[in-house]
Amino acid sequence: MNINVPSSALPRVVVIGGGFAGLSLIKHVDQNEFQVVLLDRNNYHTFQPLLYEVATSGLEVGSIAYPLRRYIKHFKNVFFRMAEVNKIDAEKKELCTSIGCIRYDYLVIATGSESNFFGNKLLEQKSMQMKNIPQALDIRSILLQNFEEATHIEDLEKRKAYMTFVIAGGGPTGVEMAGALAELKKHVLAKDYPELNISNMEIYLLEGSNRLLGVMSEQASKKAYDYLSRMGVEIWLNTFLKNFDGEKVYTNDGREINAKILLWSAGVKGATIQGLPGSTIIHGNRYHINSYNQIEGFENIFVAGDVAAFISNTTPKGHPMVASVAMQQGKLIAKNLLKLKRKEPLIEFKYFDKGSMATIGRNKAVADIGKIKFQGMLAWLIWLFIHLMAIIGFRNKVFTFFDWFWNYISYDRTLRLIIRPFKGKE
Amino acid sequence: MNINVPSSALPRVVVIGGGFAGLSLIKHVDQNEFQVVLLDRNNYHTFQPLLYEVATSGLEVGSIAYPLRRYIKHFKNVFFRMAEVNKIDAEKKELCTSIGCIRYDYLVIATGSESNFFGNKLLEQKSMQMKNIPQALDIRSILLQNFEEATHIEDLEKRKAYMTFVIAGGGPTGVEMAGALAELKKHVLAKDYPELNISNMEIYLLEGSNRLLGVMSEQASKKAYDYLSRMGVEIWLNTFLKNFDGEKVYTNDGREINAKILLWSAGVKGATIQGLPGSTIIHGNRYHINSYNQIEGFENIFVAGDVAAFISNTTPKGHPMVASVAMQQGKLIAKNLLKLKRKEPLIEFKYFDKGSMATIGRNKAVADIGKIKFQGMLAWLIWLFIHLMAIIGFRNKVFTFFDWFWNYISYDRTLRLIIRPFKGKE
Repeated sequence: MNINVPSSALPRVVVIGGGFAGLSLIKHVDQNEFQVVLLDRNNYHTFQPLLYEVATSGLEVGSIAYPLRRYIKHFKNVFFRMAEVNKIDAEKKELCTSIGCIRYDYLVIATGSESNFFGNKLLEQKSMQMKNIPQALDIRSILLQNFEEATHIEDLEKRKAYMTFVIAGGGPTGVEMAGALAELKKHVLAKDYPELNISNMEIYLLEGSNRLLGVMSEQASKKAYDYLSRMGVEIWLNTFLKNFDGEKVYTNDGREINAKILLWSAGVKGATIQGLPGSTIIHGNRYHINSYNQIEGFENIFVAGDVAAFISNTTPKGHPMVASVAMQQGKLIAKNLLKLKRKEPLIEFKYFDKGSMATIGRNKAVADIGKIKFQGMLAWLIWLFIHLMAIIGFRNKVFTFFDWFWNYISYDRTLRLIIRPFKGKE
Repeated sequence: MNINVPSSALPRVVVIGGGFAGLSLIKHVDQNEFQVVLLDRNNYHTFQPLLYEVATSGLEVGSIAYPLRRYIKHFKNVFFRMAEVNKIDAEKKELCTSIGCIRYDYLVIATGSESNFFGNKLLEQKSMQMKNIPQALDIRSILLQNFEEATHIEDLEKRKAYMTFVIAGGGPTGVEMAGALAELKKHVLAKDYPELNISNMEIYLLEGSNRLLGVMSEQASKKAYDYLSRMGVEIWLNTFLKNFDGEKVYTNDGREINAKILLWSAGVKGATIQGLPGSTIIHGNRYHINSYNQIEGFENIFVAGDVAAFISNTTPKGHPMVASVAMQQGKLIAKNLLKLKRKEPLIEFKYFDKGSMATIGRNKAVADIGKIKFQGMLAWLIWLFIHLMAIIGFRNKVFTFFDWFWNYISYDRTLRLIIRPFKGKE
């Protein structure tokens, strides 16, 4: 069975993934020169940088998700199909998916990344992840479910385990999540559960290296550490998680934490697809790309975003897995597709690093922008503004702003709802 | 195991259900005279009248759900436990729940209603319901999933079945849902799926009696019929649904409709609890109450809302199962609890009927307020205003207003998201 998109005299670009890279490509590709078919397993784009806000009852799902069919309506020659891609056949120039196969002239792989458990099956089974919206909602639910459960557990040690939240990985996700949890604890959970002694709630942040936010400056790391410590987060640096069995967290140096929830944010890998030779995949399970974002030897296959790795002297592990790399690569590929079609020389990718930021809580953020490093309220306001601007869709910007504004003035989170109780992984 | 709420010298009122009746009782009960324990299987109150808006991508979940622990914070002597009540033991004055048992001095049953399939197991298995938020989200998902599916079905008849939505029951739920679907079809689905011929989407509304909105005036029924017909809804009056097997709807007069979705809104029954004698339950599976809202013979057990039936000459089938009855009964019970405690004569329930309304679409609603019956834009504006006022929580009012405003001016629904695909009932 074939996916039936309208036939066209134009060459067809198939894009796998409606994330930052895929949508940037669609926005910049020449609509008069190509037919574009976007495939995604979901019918919406996810604004991943704010998943932790959904998980901590700060934002609604609808504020960070945007319908892909709504997005492509702006473009005349773009088609969408909701499908899971199973296999690439580069020789036949064909993709096979959950809803049939489709032929391509050019392929853009922008499938992003997924959690990497480094083969630890127990850890994978027992820990929570936060790579997509259902997972963020599961975290929201299980956290609240455990608090409800704790109200009728008499044994103190057991009760504490239900109130303890361990985060493995002190990168931006771990740091932002720890900060948001600390605020949820102080402003919401403390008041919602007077029957529980809130000081029994502990938030642990485990980081393998000697500082938080390893991708940022020493100054940012230090300030993030200070903020989180003062907010009551227990930070263990130079500590690797060894295992988690659903009841206890074990570290490499023999320490243990009784905890019912572990959020795994200590490893990601590229979400590659079957079919291309193993040699195209390198370190971190990412596709090895050349400076034009092609896979070497496959002139018509481009890769963008988290799943792409361009290795050079300045990027020995590839570019960072962040939205701005993905968007810039998507844009470059749009240009290179046209160059390729016209048999003109392609353009090399140059990453313009706009800097990096992380927010920790009310009026607390850290920012490295070029050589300028600053922290506190100004960084926080800039963080808010940049994220608001980056969210797709006017309604979503407005709703995010209102929820932030509301949470800021009320110190409240009315989204602490267990809509679908988490019952363990399927 | 017992549910551990703080011990108190005050008599304990246990309230089952945080719906309109339960919350109204809590708001009006004398906090200095009673300890109140609220039990609900969810940690939130649901604003049921707008479930159809969630199902048709018009409103976010967070706009119609409100955390019960947030609600009870206003009251000093009210406690909440998330629990499913399994059994009442009236002799021991005890309830047993999923998290343990609890003793009561006074019991208020406000468990609401659930769908009634009149024993048809196939229908129950195959049809969609809309009594709670997860069910409304399931409808949202399956509708969009079926459209995505339809894009790759070649056979026209089969494709049409995926695009057909049948509603059984022409009461307020059925009418409001049909109207919202017709607007979703026209303004959203028609544009989102240019590859499908939108005229293949059919919306059927089946009603057993000879008019829609049987609880309202003839004038309202007629106007609702006109509105819906003009919006393209296929209305079959005097038609009972006989069966639905997941592929085809069968009616009592031998007609058939190929359809993948059937929404069942043609029958409800009281959500009673095990333990009280069968004689306390009458027609419609509701508790038979006296004029003080007590179950006859159980002085300390009160019932309010959908699950209560007060039978009199003017209410041969009990009061209508609507929010205003529930709220007024909750308030009365609060007063009667105090009277009972003080051994004073109880007050009889008198329903003050504020009228009824139903909305059909943009600028289209029908209203019967006392002897005044009107339809159109004014009715629609009043409907909007009344519902906004009734929604619990300031944030939720603001967000509902903004979504309505946004949908009104943009003719759009950015919440058409399949967050958790519907995979059939568990």
